[in-house]
Amino acid sequence: MNITGLMTSAGINTAICFVLFSLFSVLRKQPCNAGIYFGQRIAQVRSKHHEPFCFERLVPSASWIMKAWRASEEDIIASGGLDAVVFLRIIVFSIQIFSIAAIICIFLVLPLNYFGQEMQHKNIPSESLEVFTVGNVKEGSRWLWAHCLALYVITCSACGLLYIENKNIANMRLAYVSASPPKPSQFTVLVRAIPWSSEKCYSDLVSRFFRKYYGSSYLSHQMIYRSGTVQKLMSDAEKMYKMLKSTHMRDYHRSSILTCGLCGGTASSFQILAGEPESAEDRGDFTAPDLREKECAAVLVFFRTRFAANITSKSLLTPNPMQWVTDLAPEPNDVFWSNLCIPYRLLWIRRVATLSTTIVFMLFSLGPVGVVCGLANADKLQNLLPFLRGILERKFMSQLVTGYLPSVILILFLYIVPPIMMLFSAVEGSISHSGRKKSACIKVLYFLIWNVFFANILVGSFIDRLDTIQNVVPREMPTVLAKVVPEKAFFFTTYVLTSGWASLACELVQPFVLLCNLVDRLLCRNKGVLSCDVMSFPYHTEIPRLLVFGLIGFTFCIFAPLILPFLLVYFSVANLVYRNQILDVYVTKYQSGGLYWPIVHNVTIFSLVLTHTIALGFFGMKKSTVASGFVVPLTICTLLFHIYCRERFFLLYKDNAAQVLIDMDREDEQSGRLEEIHQQLCSAYCQFKSRNAADLDQFDHRDAQMIQKPEDIKHVV
Amino acid sequence: MNITGLMTSAGINTAICFVLFSLFSVLRKQPCNAGIYFGQRIAQVRSKHHEPFCFERLVPSASWIMKAWRASEEDIIASGGLDAVVFLRIIVFSIQIFSIAAIICIFLVLPLNYFGQEMQHKNIPSESLEVFTVGNVKEGSRWLWAHCLALYVITCSACGLLYIENKNIANMRLAYVSASPPKPSQFTVLVRAIPWSSEKCYSDLVSRFFRKYYGSSYLSHQMIYRSGTVQKLMSDAEKMYKMLKSTHMRDYHRSSILTCGLCGGTASSFQILAGEPESAEDRGDFTAPDLREKECAAVLVFFRTRFAANITSKSLLTPNPMQWVTDLAPEPNDVFWSNLCIPYRLLWIRRVATLSTTIVFMLFSLGPVGVVCGLANADKLQNLLPFLRGILERKFMSQLVTGYLPSVILILFLYIVPPIMMLFSAVEGSISHSGRKKSACIKVLYFLIWNVFFANILVGSFIDRLDTIQNVVPREMPTVLAKVVPEKAFFFTTYVLTSGWASLACELVQPFVLLCNLVDRLLCRNKGVLSCDVMSFPYHTEIPRLLVFGLIGFTFCIFAPLILPFLLVYFSVANLVYRNQILDVYVTKYQSGGLYWPIVHNVTIFSLVLTHTIALGFFGMKKSTVASGFVVPLTICTLLFHIYCRERFFLLYKDNAAQVLIDMDREDEQSGRLEEIHQQLCSAYCQFKSRNAADLDQFDHRDAQMIQKPEDIKHVV
Repeated sequence: MNITGLMTSAGINTAICFVLFSLFSVLRKQPCNAGIYFGQRIAQVRSKHHEPFCFERLVPSASWIMKAWRASEEDIIASGGLDAVVFLRIIVFSIQIFSIAAIICIFLVLPLNYFGQEMQHKNIPSESLEVFTVGNVKEGSRWLWAHCLALYVITCSACGLLYIENKNIANMRLAYVSASPPKPSQFTVLVRAIPWSSEKCYSDLVSRFFRKYYGSSYLSHQMIYRSGTVQKLMSDAEKMYKMLKSTHMRDYHRSSILTCGLCGGTASSFQILAGEPESAEDRGDFTAPDLREKECAAVLVFFRTRFAANITSKSLLTPNPMQWVTDLAPEPNDVFWSNLCIPYRLLWIRRVATLSTTIVFMLFSLGPVGVVCGLANADKLQNLLPFLRGILERKFMSQLVTGYLPSVILILFLYIVPPIMMLFSAVEGSISHSGRKKSACIKVLYFLIWNVFFANILVGSFIDRLDTIQNVVPREMPTVLAKVVPEKAFFFTTYVLTSGWASLACELVQPFVLLCNLVDRLLCRNKGVLSCDVMSFPYHTEIPRLLVFGLIGFTFCIFAPLILPFLLVYFSVANLVYRNQILDVYVTKYQSGGLYWPIVHNVTIFSLVLTHTIALGFFGMKKSTVASGFVVPLTICTLLFHIYCRERFFLLYKDNAAQVLIDMDREDEQSGRLEEIHQQLCSAYCQFKSRNAADLDQFDHRDAQMIQKPEDIKHVV
Repeated sequence: MNITGLMTSAGINTAICFVLFSLFSVLRKQPCNAGIYFGQRIAQVRSKHHEPFCFERLVPSASWIMKAWRASEEDIIASGGLDAVVFLRIIVFSIQIFSIAAIICIFLVLPLNYFGQEMQHKNIPSESLEVFTVGNVKEGSRWLWAHCLALYVITCSACGLLYIENKNIANMRLAYVSASPPKPSQFTVLVRAIPWSSEKCYSDLVSRFFRKYYGSSYLSHQMIYRSGTVQKLMSDAEKMYKMLKSTHMRDYHRSSILTCGLCGGTASSFQILAGEPESAEDRGDFTAPDLREKECAAVLVFFRTRFAANITSKSLLTPNPMQWVTDLAPEPNDVFWSNLCIPYRLLWIRRVATLSTTIVFMLFSLGPVGVVCGLANADKLQNLLPFLRGILERKFMSQLVTGYLPSVILILFLYIVPPIMMLFSAVEGSISHSGRKKSACIKVLYFLIWNVFFANILVGSFIDRLDTIQNVVPREMPTVLAKVVPEKAFFFTTYVLTSGWASLACELVQPFVLLCNLVDRLLCRNKGVLSCDVMSFPYHTEIPRLLVFGLIGFTFCIFAPLILPFLLVYFSVANLVYRNQILDVYVTKYQSGGLYWPIVHNVTIFSLVLTHTIALGFFGMKKSTVASGFVVPLTICTLLFHIYCRERFFLLYKDNAAQVLIDMDREDEQSGRLEEIHQQLCSAYCQFKSRNAADLDQFDHRDAQMIQKPEDIKHVV
């Protein structure tokens, strides 16, 4: 493919994006789509307002771009939480580092590549793309120091920027921890694997244990129940509640009767605890006797102070590490209730099984990726499979099959991966939705890096050499990569164009939800109770996508610098699109509190080291020992930087500082707010309130929640 | 080599051992050697008693064997601590598992190997050793299921025994934690990386911080000083102390004036804290002003309860994980004072540097091992190096060079490794002597497994094939191992005979110390002040040795069962020898409290999985797919067992259970002992008391301490 081909491809994609963006700016003005494009606002504003039809609605406009651009970090935190900020920081970081890389690579490296061989150059538009890659530099060239210099500049800038980001995000994380209003999760510890006793029910065991050993800080507890039968009981109770509601509403000062008696820590038991210590047996009659059988060996224990809860969650309670296992509880909205009942002794088996299944799945997925690569190398395959020759003889078909089709197949195939990984992470036993999403994010990331990057390159290399690949020794890996990476530049440029640009447009227009919405309205005549999904941000698909583009950017920047402008366009548009999505579309029901950042840091360091490895192989291949020699200290320094950052920042994502917690506790105590917090704590966690939503969420990568009629929605453009 | 050769070698070794053991039984009866063979007793009993010469002293006897055999576990714990019990459990576990292996392999596997090929057998004594290895089984033999069965029996027994040992040692560890008398370390937290302040000294910062955040549980603290000038001041103070001692001895009720003023938490400051809280500045005049400059950014903080100390040591104190870093303090005798002053920000660099140096050292050490292997394969090398032919033509020389010399060189070379690893571990920055020894133990273990096992096998294989090894893909590793392991059986059998048996005899007789002692007495006429070393047990050399023998046992048991009887003899004799050494020779100044056990568990599992890998390669090579198929589930089960054990037991070695600590605290409080413990706590840690000994220890793998004149020693046979 030559420059013209690449530009054509870029042109087509730009046009598609432009059309879709315009379509979006029109669609978002239609009131019937408000549920799709303004989920965030709908969740906030709930007033009745009917807007009349006007012609302006049908004119494409760029107002959303301005709005997204102007949003400050505070706005983002307010609507998307810390995770959204971390997400946008990934994009900003990428823009910064790839701008630096683009400047140095296009002005220094690209000319050297182009004039690397003594050859007759054609017109630039009809020039083959390979002329622009590092493959064009001749062996032993003394200009290779420029590539080495570029590598140094890019690595140093990346580390510098990464350090600044690390520092900023660590500060934001601290602010998140100490932010008001107080979080119930900070006072709550999830205790699992309570040992079974034939004499006492779990609730008694818990209250006895914590009164004995944590008497001064233990406040109350709330049993967790197996769902199923209880669920049925609950719905009955709910009906009765609705009947009684009108008369007795003012008698109880608590928000929901559902927590009473069923969700363990009742207001009455709580007051008993606060006053005179009374034997646990006396409280037995608060819980229905048949519910005892439904008790899980898991419980939420509430403590008087954040500090006490934190230290209990980090301690080994009893000499048997498989009993009385503690964790800090997730936020009430974040709890993955159905996973809390999994017997703790099965958890490690589940984890091992999920890990093995993921690995097997990744290996088996090489099949489709192989097909993709086969298509990308169809011209080489046609010697083996003669029927391809007929198809490929037509120029258009050839370009389609070798250029565009592979990445489209790859994208479609990759659409099914996140839900599968989400399922795996649910089976794994995460106790929180955010934890499940983070775990799925890591799995999808491994999958993408393995399948998109390595498998593509290696399978490509396998088709090139067909049999020699089998004898590749790990030592030779850098050389193999160095040989294949420049050749693969064209494929990955197309990948950025299709997977990157197109996915942004899709993300904006949300065609799938739009279609569902349309079908729902047209076929089901479902005008009254439209169930349109208010989604939470799919970090587990989007973060891996960004990171893989980052990986592609780093590994290709000095070998095929032409990829950089396309990447920069992608990240710049992504910045606007995702800002809009975070501000308007997605609802933040739960967040991990910036726990995605360590993943980002690790992958960036991995990308840098991988780039160095490829550079090492490449310089070795081009017989430039000086350049090779200079790469090794760079890698060592990068790794040292990584270890330092781990030591300096990463503990903050695992543990909360005692100083901060104690200060917060004291402040609350002095302001007299602590009592109020304790009161609210007991009703904060309600197992069966939002179970429907949680269940819907379980096997869908987009979390769903029922909202009110579209007529009720205020038009908020 | 044939059976006769092997038996000759075994005979020579047995004779040497017998002579050395007899020599030992005589030498130990000489009063002048009491310091060498009864260090343990000397440390306990200190009375003046002169025994007259009698003839009985010169008669070899087996009394020590009986005594060692009769010693109960309580005796071992009393004289060697939990580490000694763990050490002996390794031996007992090895005896048990290799007895089972020996029974099944010698009665089931060995005959199958011997009659594996249809061949004319010679007399058994002149039969080649290779006939007894699995290499003699013909391809596709239907008797390979027996090898597979043996593998199953051995793996299952090993896992079962390992589980029992895990359980026992976990219980012992719990008993160790809750054992009386109370340990000062349980109340003490080592805080490092105190941030520097221009206004306040470290001591004030510490007292202000802990009073503010841990006011209810903070007791007192003790600064740590840089040595050097302080050391000089101390020696002056000590002189003055000796002068004043006779007159003022009863005025002070504390054990040593050395702690006063210099080691921070003085009795007076302690009483102030216990009473009215007073500003830290007022206490400043207790410390000499010039000592402030010598303060390190590290401090020992004493808490009122074990529980408070434990949770503080596990917490992240401030939002910066590189400041106010906490660890549970080691026992007073165990503290590695000079390492406490290392600035914390340098520690990770030291760790990385040590790790890299260790890896480089291990790679470079392939040189000597290559020489060893070259000698073992001298008959193959003589085609390359013709001058060897002349030497090897003499039969005796050939046997010496190929049979005995390689392992002797290996042993001598391996003598220098433990001190080097001990040095690395000291540089690494361990805060305790036991931690340093444990770290050195792991390093020596990696070194031995890599150099003795893998390097030997792979370099051997390299010499066999000379150039083909370069193209070995990791996938082919099992096949390479399977091919080489049976061939190497002879070398490792000799290794067990020389390194194993001979080292036991050396361990018993202690020729090096004996020689030093002799030289000291004869040359220096040093009859009065004999400085004979009372050593602490060299776990870092002996545990790796045992584990490598275990690894050899597991990997060779089904391939070359003839190695098993020799191993069993080794372990049985080791059981007696080490019991004697623990009871009589070594003094336990510090112990890790069983922290060596997880290493043992991990290496045993590694050995099993390695055996499976080799078996897999072997069955593949012999074209027995059924047997290969049966090995895979066995490996999976072994790994699952390992993960379970980690979950179930390993946390106990990292953390103490809150329940146990709180119970202990309450018991002490109720019995009124807590006040007494608090009093003792402040004088428990003394930085400059035993510095000489600690310094001597630093670069020596045997810890040394000065003891009294030999005339003062009671003869304790």
